[in-house]
Amino acid sequence: LAGKLVALLDGGAPLSPPPVWMMRQAGRYLPEYRAVRDQAGSFLNLCFNPELAAEVTMQPIRRFGFDAAILFSDILVVPHALGQFVAFEAGEGPRLTPLHELGRLSALRDELHADVVGKVYEAVRLIRATLPPDVDLLGFCGAPWTVATYMVAGRGGDDQIAAKLMAAREPDMFASLIDRLVDASIIYLVEQLRAGVDAVQIFDTWAGTLDPASFERWVIAPLAKIVAGVRAKVPNARIIAFPKGGAQHIDKLVSQTAVNGFGLDWTADSKQVRVANRGRAVLQGNLDPITLIAGGKALDQAIDNVLDNFSGERLIFNLGHGIRPETPIEHVERMIARVRGT
Amino acid sequence: LAGKLVALLDGGAPLSPPPVWMMRQAGRYLPEYRAVRDQAGSFLNLCFNPELAAEVTMQPIRRFGFDAAILFSDILVVPHALGQFVAFEAGEGPRLTPLHELGRLSALRDELHADVVGKVYEAVRLIRATLPPDVDLLGFCGAPWTVATYMVAGRGGDDQIAAKLMAAREPDMFASLIDRLVDASIIYLVEQLRAGVDAVQIFDTWAGTLDPASFERWVIAPLAKIVAGVRAKVPNARIIAFPKGGAQHIDKLVSQTAVNGFGLDWTADSKQVRVANRGRAVLQGNLDPITLIAGGKALDQAIDNVLDNFSGERLIFNLGHGIRPETPIEHVERMIARVRGT
Repeated sequence: LAGKLVALLDGGAPLSPPPVWMMRQAGRYLPEYRAVRDQAGSFLNLCFNPELAAEVTMQPIRRFGFDAAILFSDILVVPHALGQFVAFEAGEGPRLTPLHELGRLSALRDELHADVVGKVYEAVRLIRATLPPDVDLLGFCGAPWTVATYMVAGRGGDDQIAAKLMAAREPDMFASLIDRLVDASIIYLVEQLRAGVDAVQIFDTWAGTLDPASFERWVIAPLAKIVAGVRAKVPNARIIAFPKGGAQHIDKLVSQTAVNGFGLDWTADSKQVRVANRGRAVLQGNLDPITLIAGGKALDQAIDNVLDNFSGERLIFNLGHGIRPETPIEHVERMIARVRGT
Repeated sequence: LAGKLVALLDGGAPLSPPPVWMMRQAGRYLPEYRAVRDQAGSFLNLCFNPELAAEVTMQPIRRFGFDAAILFSDILVVPHALGQFVAFEAGEGPRLTPLHELGRLSALRDELHADVVGKVYEAVRLIRATLPPDVDLLGFCGAPWTVATYMVAGRGGDDQIAAKLMAAREPDMFASLIDRLVDASIIYLVEQLRAGVDAVQIFDTWAGTLDPASFERWVIAPLAKIVAGVRAKVPNARIIAFPKGGAQHIDKLVSQTAVNGFGLDWTADSKQVRVANRGRAVLQGNLDPITLIAGGKALDQAIDNVLDNFSGERLIFNLGHGIRPETPIEHVERMIARVRGT
């Protein structure tokens, strides 16, 4: 017994209504999440406490009845487990020692620290044991390009300058970093799948900041290696790519990686995407999260636009990026009811 | 006698090498610019001092021999001239009194303050009188959507949340604001053309943050009105649109606005853009400004990619966004030499 995402990702026909979940659905917009995070003391404590991570993963399932749960974790667990320790300062976003200060690649561990990632796999086992069988569980990791932007700069929010400069000035070093992340991502996703996730999503939040040649080199090529590497260990592993801002490259990406699903942000042109995709990847998205803050008729209209735009397509309804902390819970309820026609 | 941009925008054949200029070419990466800005005391003083604005506009022409000059000014001159006074705090970006605090639209002036925009037109006259006749002069304004994001939020850098929320919750009010900006932009561009600019560019920096339906409503429709309004007063006015992040909409935008040129940021897929454009608009762009910081072989390769990608096309070589202050001047020289094959 499995759920609707698995059915679609395994090649099933379009579903009407489409299954629905939300990126960052276990998060700060929920009072019950904030209570558990306060109990944990910090974001990282929460990520590395299997019981609490399982609890917050389950919260939006219990409250809203989403069709999928997604493991509560962070894309920076991988650099953390490679020895580039990550701190999350309140209101500041993540902070890492930038790679150059750390002593370059040689300072990283050869393998993911088992004590760190072991907590993640344990959380997966706990969640899968608790989750109803018809609710699919997604694991995830950050894509090499996006994770590298944090590792090189030591932080986010700088227009990815540091990573782009390293890629331009020290291309061999940057390629080595990407390769290290490819290898680590393969192991990390394989172990999540073995622990019980039904599919994995690879988040490439900063993919859309690259020119087309760089997109092929730093987004598509590493992704193709990850997909091949994961499926060498877990045949038919279900993989969703989310290269935010990269929908114009869907044809090339799907052709070269054979992912099962493709996440769209809200700026994607549905007609162009559908023509280029030719029904190959399940499409996931793509409501503007700010519309979900706004609510009202504008929200209803935006939801209807997504449903119309992807009518007859193998669609997983989602936001085009993570839900924001200031989003009213009633708007989430309104969205789910409208998608499901209830 | 006119220059190469005019030749292309008036329907001329592709030029090899293509004409070249840079967005924000009069700016902080130049020591002679910093000297004049220090003399002026502030960024706004510089914008509203015709002699100094003309001087900094000329600086990159004298130093690099670009094929076009662009009026030194700022897209927030329009809200300033409508009575929503703008302050530029060092290192902070622009600050305006948010529209709601200001007392909504009724607090704005009906017409652009002549004392304010008069300084801009005077700068245009001074520049055109100084500039060699074969160097084209560009005027500009911000597009209504992008200017509105600053007017509503009172600042930039917030993912355009405030403007999107107003558009969703108070659609009539937001539409009125956009209409006011359309009307003001028409007058502002017409007067710049009458003062001597050879073409105008409309900067829509935040166009790429909109979903396709919103892009049609807040980017394409206002732009179509501006183009029609300007050409009603100045027939055959040459107009370049730069909807950053909106290249996937080039077919619709060019069809509905009849602009002469279309600016591309570096993420645009050249093959898709060329197919969709069908040779109608002159294409302008699209080197990643961070590559220009990097320099070296990566810069050479990226320049060659742009030239190859748009080979045989009516191209104006440019960056995909403004040059950054930390860019070494030698990299600009290297870029120009490579584009020109000298």
